[in-house]
Amino acid sequence: MIDPENQDTSLIHRQTKTKPSRNISHYLIGRPLPTADAPNETIGKAVGLAVFASDALSSTAYATQEILVILAAAGTLAFGYVFPISIVIVGLLAIVVISYEQIIHAYPSGGGAYIVAYDNFGHFPALVAAAALLTDYILTVSVSVSSGVAQIISAYPELFNYRVAISVSCVIFIMVVNLRGVRESGTAFAIPSYLFIVMMFITIGTGLFRLFTGSLSDVPDPPDIEHFGEALSGVTAFLLLHAFSSGTAALTGVEAISNGITAFKEPRSRNAGITLIWMAFILGLLFMGISFLTREIRAVPSETETVISQLARTIFNGQGILYLLVIITTTVILILAANTAFAGFPRLSAMLAQDGFMPRQLTYRGSRLVYSYGIISLAAMASLLIIVFQASVTRLIPLYAIGVFLSFTLAQAGMAKRWWRAGKLAPQDSDIDNRHQARDELRYEKSWFIKMLSNGFGALCTAIVMLVFAVTKFRDGAWFVLLLTPILIGIFLRIHGHYAKVATSLSLEHYGEPPPYNVRHRVLVPISNVHQGTLAALRYARMLSDDITAINISMEPGDTERVRKKWEKWGRGTRLVIVDSPYRLFLEPLLGYIDEIIASRQANETITIVVPQFVPSKKVHNVLHMQTAEMLRRELLSTPGVVITEVPYQIP
Amino acid sequence: MIDPENQDTSLIHRQTKTKPSRNISHYLIGRPLPTADAPNETIGKAVGLAVFASDALSSTAYATQEILVILAAAGTLAFGYVFPISIVIVGLLAIVVISYEQIIHAYPSGGGAYIVAYDNFGHFPALVAAAALLTDYILTVSVSVSSGVAQIISAYPELFNYRVAISVSCVIFIMVVNLRGVRESGTAFAIPSYLFIVMMFITIGTGLFRLFTGSLSDVPDPPDIEHFGEALSGVTAFLLLHAFSSGTAALTGVEAISNGITAFKEPRSRNAGITLIWMAFILGLLFMGISFLTREIRAVPSETETVISQLARTIFNGQGILYLLVIITTTVILILAANTAFAGFPRLSAMLAQDGFMPRQLTYRGSRLVYSYGIISLAAMASLLIIVFQASVTRLIPLYAIGVFLSFTLAQAGMAKRWWRAGKLAPQDSDIDNRHQARDELRYEKSWFIKMLSNGFGALCTAIVMLVFAVTKFRDGAWFVLLLTPILIGIFLRIHGHYAKVATSLSLEHYGEPPPYNVRHRVLVPISNVHQGTLAALRYARMLSDDITAINISMEPGDTERVRKKWEKWGRGTRLVIVDSPYRLFLEPLLGYIDEIIASRQANETITIVVPQFVPSKKVHNVLHMQTAEMLRRELLSTPGVVITEVPYQIP
Repeated sequence: MIDPENQDTSLIHRQTKTKPSRNISHYLIGRPLPTADAPNETIGKAVGLAVFASDALSSTAYATQEILVILAAAGTLAFGYVFPISIVIVGLLAIVVISYEQIIHAYPSGGGAYIVAYDNFGHFPALVAAAALLTDYILTVSVSVSSGVAQIISAYPELFNYRVAISVSCVIFIMVVNLRGVRESGTAFAIPSYLFIVMMFITIGTGLFRLFTGSLSDVPDPPDIEHFGEALSGVTAFLLLHAFSSGTAALTGVEAISNGITAFKEPRSRNAGITLIWMAFILGLLFMGISFLTREIRAVPSETETVISQLARTIFNGQGILYLLVIITTTVILILAANTAFAGFPRLSAMLAQDGFMPRQLTYRGSRLVYSYGIISLAAMASLLIIVFQASVTRLIPLYAIGVFLSFTLAQAGMAKRWWRAGKLAPQDSDIDNRHQARDELRYEKSWFIKMLSNGFGALCTAIVMLVFAVTKFRDGAWFVLLLTPILIGIFLRIHGHYAKVATSLSLEHYGEPPPYNVRHRVLVPISNVHQGTLAALRYARMLSDDITAINISMEPGDTERVRKKWEKWGRGTRLVIVDSPYRLFLEPLLGYIDEIIASRQANETITIVVPQFVPSKKVHNVLHMQTAEMLRRELLSTPGVVITEVPYQIP
Repeated sequence: MIDPENQDTSLIHRQTKTKPSRNISHYLIGRPLPTADAPNETIGKAVGLAVFASDALSSTAYATQEILVILAAAGTLAFGYVFPISIVIVGLLAIVVISYEQIIHAYPSGGGAYIVAYDNFGHFPALVAAAALLTDYILTVSVSVSSGVAQIISAYPELFNYRVAISVSCVIFIMVVNLRGVRESGTAFAIPSYLFIVMMFITIGTGLFRLFTGSLSDVPDPPDIEHFGEALSGVTAFLLLHAFSSGTAALTGVEAISNGITAFKEPRSRNAGITLIWMAFILGLLFMGISFLTREIRAVPSETETVISQLARTIFNGQGILYLLVIITTTVILILAANTAFAGFPRLSAMLAQDGFMPRQLTYRGSRLVYSYGIISLAAMASLLIIVFQASVTRLIPLYAIGVFLSFTLAQAGMAKRWWRAGKLAPQDSDIDNRHQARDELRYEKSWFIKMLSNGFGALCTAIVMLVFAVTKFRDGAWFVLLLTPILIGIFLRIHGHYAKVATSLSLEHYGEPPPYNVRHRVLVPISNVHQGTLAALRYARMLSDDITAINISMEPGDTERVRKKWEKWGRGTRLVIVDSPYRLFLEPLLGYIDEIIASRQANETITIVVPQFVPSKKVHNVLHMQTAEMLRRELLSTPGVVITEVPYQIP
């Protein structure tokens, strides 16, 4: 036996020659990529814009309409407020984008609101932000795919009965493309995203040109105005606030880039920051343009025709090819908004898993270097929501957007706190003793006060929007999100508790001197019969120790004599204990016997159970045999102080 | 080490003190019974009649009607043939019963047609009989429960949408009562069975009395005659044969006692035989009485009112309490006919399992000394049929009865062969060298020729009935049974082949001298990290051998250095192989390395893989950990020459 005190360690470092074998999934998601390829699997600004902006840009397809719907309660005259409200929303967008621009440079490892809150407020607010964001990502997928499919169905009503199947298929399609890697999904989805942007600019440009040349008319044959269930009232401050809140749907998706900075090519922060600015400009221009023209052509909110459709129809004089292109690209961008969530959710959950708040498997990068488990989980949960809510946008949308504004608020409040901390430092000092694994370095900042004010103001605005959401949409389903968030946080904390306990219990920190090697080794061999498999197990047991006991649980009285006779011939003198089991139980008497042995165990004694394990060549043959070895193993694994050895006996 | 040639064996025989712990199933199926109670768990003649006759007796509820339905094709005048045909059927019943009486005494271990065919024709015809009988038992449950429920639904049509659920609930109820043991199910179901017999005798007695006193009228307001889709024709020989075949439905269930002899108290054969005679008498009397009165009162076949209902209504002058009792007991006996199948199926499949044609688990007697797996399998398959056929009797009934007549034919032909064999013996000789495990002893029989003729004639009759069934009902679904039977036989043979292969490969028959003990022992310890669990596995490995190699598959480049450092401190000089896995595969590189080791293995060398197995105290926590140990185990179990040892590390 080697001297236990010998501390010389021989180390062999080698590389496996094993390459992943070809299988069906490679055709679906592409050939596996080595880990060293990770830097190549990042995206530039142009593709990044397509990946991360589709969620935000798609909201221009409905944000203006959401404002009109609320204003309709005060009659058609109130529609005039749509443009001023939109300008205020774009102002809020500017504030939020400036905050996130700062976040991207302050926290270049990504993680957005979660990391900002973790670093500045501690883990609990961070988990609130994470829970809100994860919920929102799932909802983004369900809502955007359902609304895109709803557009298809208004064109082809005969597909109505298949809406759930179509929606789930879309989710699975986007999932598969994402499993191929971020670069591939970005490239694949860039074309429709840019097509949408181009089409919207053409629409708005043509609209403005015709407006100034005086050839733009009102909407011909406008759809009936619907009041969406609210009684007609005057234009009150509350109504305007409500309309403003609804319009802020345009801001959803702005946070995505800050969560996914690691997807960008180096220099990451710079690329991500520039992409964010581009996105904000495009978003702001499109939104203002649409809202302005909507007012000019007197478009009305309706459930039968969207505002975008009224706009395109009026500007392009009827339903020609340009009109059709606008409608098609809008539909596609609505479905593709889901892709942004597929870029954000897996990264955020991997970060949570890294910190021990979600299952560790989520940090595992699949064969294409993306977080496969996260992508699949997101697709599964979004599909579940689609199935439960039968792909109904009306029933899904109230659940949406609260989470984003909660994360906006926490992120901006966190940044405000950070500027305040920066302001307290001496000009030459820096503070790297922050709470979240030293991911950034805090330096004194001259203009800390004005930055703190701007972030604080942004936080206040988004907090108000969130509260208005929570109050006005509570009964429509916002209660569900308000209930789900604490449940999620509870789950995060329990998972964290478990990992912490495991780490403590496995830790070598205060382990001290390892216990001495055991000298006595007792071996038990449960046998159901005497055959070649049993003898193989017995032979192995002999190699381990001289102290062997075979145990046979006799369920049918007739078997005892048969086993005894065979044992006399083949047992080679090994002690055999036959335990009669009058109630034909197998496991319980065996465990009872083992417990007795354990109870009489000496301090330096190890007990090994050698189980003869029968392995048929075809898995299907397992149904023809009692799975006693498997049952035994499962029971004994949780018995401390016992080691289980399986001696397999392969049947050809 | 103990001398391998030492043949002294120490044997300890003890009885477990472990009693089955109380659990929820005991409330459902009763407290467990010790094996020694088996003789008490048998039934006498009175209960036996209730258990095994309910199937046969219930057929009197529809056999007469089945004859009328066919005769209707030749017009109402043809209905006069119902009584002569019934007499012929009762004659056939007598022949079949005499055969089975002989079978019961010749083969007292039960098994009916299967054993008779096995003993006289070999295993293939035996499997044909078994497949036919098993199929028929399953169909008996589906058909009888569905038809009982159909009766309930004709009284309460609002239950129509729940018919499948009600039927399946009935099956589950009968299953649970049967799991309580044969004695309990017999007692529970004896009362309704005897009530039915009593009510039918009262009905027939009253009918005959009123007939001879001249007060019996024709059926008042008879339902419309239906021709069941066949064109009106004359009374042809084929029509009479067809009507005769349909009426032989009365014979189904006669074979049940011969399969379940072991359920009877000692002297088994005598008790079973007497019960069979009783059953045949009651069945014959009821059937003839019903057919006779049916003709006298001019009852007609109809889908809206059964013949039994017309009979009871006419005899009891309208729908009073006696009428109601007849209808209720008929409904109950139809459902209880399923109980006979629950007594037969598990015993027959246990017998097949004993002979290695079905999974061995079917021989396992549960806590109440009945073949639990067989009972549950029967309930599951019958429920499946009910669900697939939506509890429709019309769609299920064509599948029914072919199997029984196939088994009748084989059983009687087998007996004829047996008498022929007996006739060939010298008067003082006896032949115990039969094919099926010497279950009976063949003696010379003086009247062998007449017995052979009677059994041969019976076989011929039942064969004709079977052929008529197969031809006339082929398109209605009999093809399904004709297809299923060979498939079942194929499955039986494949299972048998597997068990035979296993037995050969495990056999010690020609094992000769066992191979010598191995001396070299190589131990591999795959580790994912260095922690207390790993060190425990390492400590155990040290006890097995000096030749230990730890293997770490490094999936993320950053981990390598961390593992190396820890190993230097805690590895105690053990060799560590770090294998870089650039494609983040875990299993494949490890298996590749192990394959290399195996390839260079010496003849007398054993390789043990010691796997540190992480065991969280709560099962649910398993989702928080990669199940690498489990995956590894599954892969390695099928690698010959490798033993897997799991060193569990319990997390509190």
